[in-house]
Amino acid sequence: MPVGTAATVKGITVPQLEDTGAQMVLANTYHLHLQPGEAVVEEAGGLHRFMGWSGPLLTDSGGFQVFSLGAINRIDDHGVTFRSPRDGSRILLTPERSMEIQMALGADVAMAFDQCPPQPSGEAEVALACRRTHDWLERCVAAHRRADQALFGIIQGGCFPHLRRESAAVVAAHDLPGVAVGGVSVGEPPEEIHRILRLLGPLLPDTKPRYLMGVGSLPEMALAVAQGFDLFDCVLPTRLGRHGTALVGGERWNLRNARFRRDHTPLDERCPCLACRRHSRAYLHHLVRSGEMLGRTLLSLHNLTTSLRFTSAMARAIREGCFAEDFAPWRPDSPAAHTW
Amino acid sequence: MPVGTAATVKGITVPQLEDTGAQMVLANTYHLHLQPGEAVVEEAGGLHRFMGWSGPLLTDSGGFQVFSLGAINRIDDHGVTFRSPRDGSRILLTPERSMEIQMALGADVAMAFDQCPPQPSGEAEVALACRRTHDWLERCVAAHRRADQALFGIIQGGCFPHLRRESAAVVAAHDLPGVAVGGVSVGEPPEEIHRILRLLGPLLPDTKPRYLMGVGSLPEMALAVAQGFDLFDCVLPTRLGRHGTALVGGERWNLRNARFRRDHTPLDERCPCLACRRHSRAYLHHLVRSGEMLGRTLLSLHNLTTSLRFTSAMARAIREGCFAEDFAPWRPDSPAAHTW
Repeated sequence: MPVGTAATVKGITVPQLEDTGAQMVLANTYHLHLQPGEAVVEEAGGLHRFMGWSGPLLTDSGGFQVFSLGAINRIDDHGVTFRSPRDGSRILLTPERSMEIQMALGADVAMAFDQCPPQPSGEAEVALACRRTHDWLERCVAAHRRADQALFGIIQGGCFPHLRRESAAVVAAHDLPGVAVGGVSVGEPPEEIHRILRLLGPLLPDTKPRYLMGVGSLPEMALAVAQGFDLFDCVLPTRLGRHGTALVGGERWNLRNARFRRDHTPLDERCPCLACRRHSRAYLHHLVRSGEMLGRTLLSLHNLTTSLRFTSAMARAIREGCFAEDFAPWRPDSPAAHTW
Repeated sequence: MPVGTAATVKGITVPQLEDTGAQMVLANTYHLHLQPGEAVVEEAGGLHRFMGWSGPLLTDSGGFQVFSLGAINRIDDHGVTFRSPRDGSRILLTPERSMEIQMALGADVAMAFDQCPPQPSGEAEVALACRRTHDWLERCVAAHRRADQALFGIIQGGCFPHLRRESAAVVAAHDLPGVAVGGVSVGEPPEEIHRILRLLGPLLPDTKPRYLMGVGSLPEMALAVAQGFDLFDCVLPTRLGRHGTALVGGERWNLRNARFRRDHTPLDERCPCLACRRHSRAYLHHLVRSGEMLGRTLLSLHNLTTSLRFTSAMARAIREGCFAEDFAPWRPDSPAAHTW
C-alpha cells in the first residue's frame, strides 16, 4: 500500500497512482483528524469520494503518529492525551474515539488502536504496552459498528518471543477479518525483524489477510511473504523519491550525483513507469539539481512502480509455484531478479 | 505556450501537459544555460528529447532574465555581463552567444537577443534600448545558422508610439519567419497594453506568426487576437496554481479560503481537467491548506487547461466567423462565456 497520509500520495495524481499498479492505499487517521477533520471527509461521502480513489483503502488508528509525532501529555489505560500541532489544543485519543474517526472516514479497513512502545524498550514496558493493546482491542471491537468496514487487530510484543506469542494468541481469539503485526521496523536491526517474522508466521490464522505494518524494503517483504504476509505499507518509495533517490535493482541511487549528469540512458530499462519510459537519468538529475517538483513526482512514481512490480512478481511466482525458488530468500543479486 | 523554464512546466508531467491542450511550450535559455548547460541538452539530442516533449518548442533569448533577475555588471553595445547566481562567475551574454546557446538547445523557434528596458523608463532610455535591440537583431540574424530553427525578431519601444512604429518597421524589414512584441506586461496599466496592441496590429506582417511576449490574461489575449496575434506565453497559470489560486470564469479564487472547506462541488463544472473531473473544491482546499504538492499540480493543471480552453475557443470562433461577436472585446461577464 502506498502511503497517502493526508488523503494524497504525495505529488501523485489518482490516475498516476493507478498506473503504478497500486491495489490499495493507506491514509493516516491522525493527520486527517487534524486536517480537514473527519466531519468534512464524511460529508464528502467518505475517504474514497473525498480523495477520488475508488480502490480499497485502509486507515491506521492514529496511535503510531500520536506516539511518534505528538507532544504527548499523558498515556494511561483510558487513552492518550496530546497537544494538537496546529493550535496547541488538547486532544484525547481513545480506542472508542479512534473507531469513531475511522468509521467517519469510511475506509474499507480500520485498524485497532494500539500502543507501539519506542525502540529499544525493556521487557516490562513492552509487556505493559501489550496488555494495554489487548484491552484496547476489546474496546475497539465493542465500539466498531460499521458492517461495510473490516477491523484488523494488531499484534505487539517488540523483540520478546513470549510476548509476541501471547499477543498473537489474544488477537487471533477475536477472529477479526484481518491480523496485523505492529512494532516492527521501528529501529531494530533486520535480523530482529526476520526473527519475529519467522516466529509469528506459523502462529497467524491461515484464512485471514496478514498485514505487516511499516515494512516496505524488498528483502523484508520477500521474507514476510514467505511467512504468509499479504499486506504492507511503507513511506519509503515516496519519501526517497522526494529526496532525489531512486530504487533501482535493489539499490538506492542518489540522482543528485554528478555521475548522472551526462547519462542519457533510462533510469531502469526494465521499469515501465513514466520516468523510465519517457526520460533519461540526465534529465532526472537535472530536475533534482534544479529542485523541480517534477523530479520529486517522477522519482516517487518510479519507486512506487518498482516496489509494486516486486510484490506483483511475488504474487505471480506464488501462482506459478516458483516463489520459494525465486524469492525465499531474495537478495539484490539473487537470480530471481530476472522474474520482475 | 505554458512556460517550462527549466525544461519542465513546474509540477506537470508530459502526458499531463498534452492533456491540457498545449500545442507549444516555452523554455528559458538563461536557466538552461546555467543548469544543466546547453552542452548536456545538445548531447541528449536537443531540448525535445531532453525533456520528452515532442511538440513545438520555443526558447527565449535569455535577455529578459538577465535584465530582470541577474546581478548585472555591465550593459554595452557588445552585450551584457552578469554574475552567475550559482557560483558568482562572470558570464557574458551577447547576441552571438544567445544564438549559439539557442542553436545548441535546438528548439523549433529561437528568439532574437533584445534589451527590454525596465518600466517606467524615459524616452531616451527606451530609444537607446530600441537602437541596441535593432543592432543586436542584425547580429542575431548573421549568427543564426540552423535551417531547422526559426528565428523571430522582437519589437521594443515601450509606451512610445513613434518608437514602436520605428521598431516594427526595422523588424519587419528583416523578413524573419515570425515577429514578436516585447516590453509589454512589464508593469504598465492594461490601458497602455491595449493602446500598444491597437497601434501595432496594423503594422505587423500579415503572413507571419505574431507573438505577444509575457501576456496570458484572458482579456489581454482576446484583445491581442483581435489584432492578429497568434502566440502567447505566461507563467501566470502555473505560478498562481502553485500558490493555491484557481482561474475560474475569469476570476481568481484563492482555494485557501475557508469558504471552500465544505464545498463538495467541482472547482469548475465546465472544465474537463483532472482537478475538476475527479475532485472537489473541499479536497483542493484541503490539499492547499496541507501544503501538499498534489494541490499545486492539480491547480496548475486546471489553470493551464482553462487558459488553453480559452485560446482554443478563440481559434474555433475565428474559424466559425463569430470571433468579433464573442471575443472582441471579451470580459468575464461577456455573453461569450458560453462559447468556452
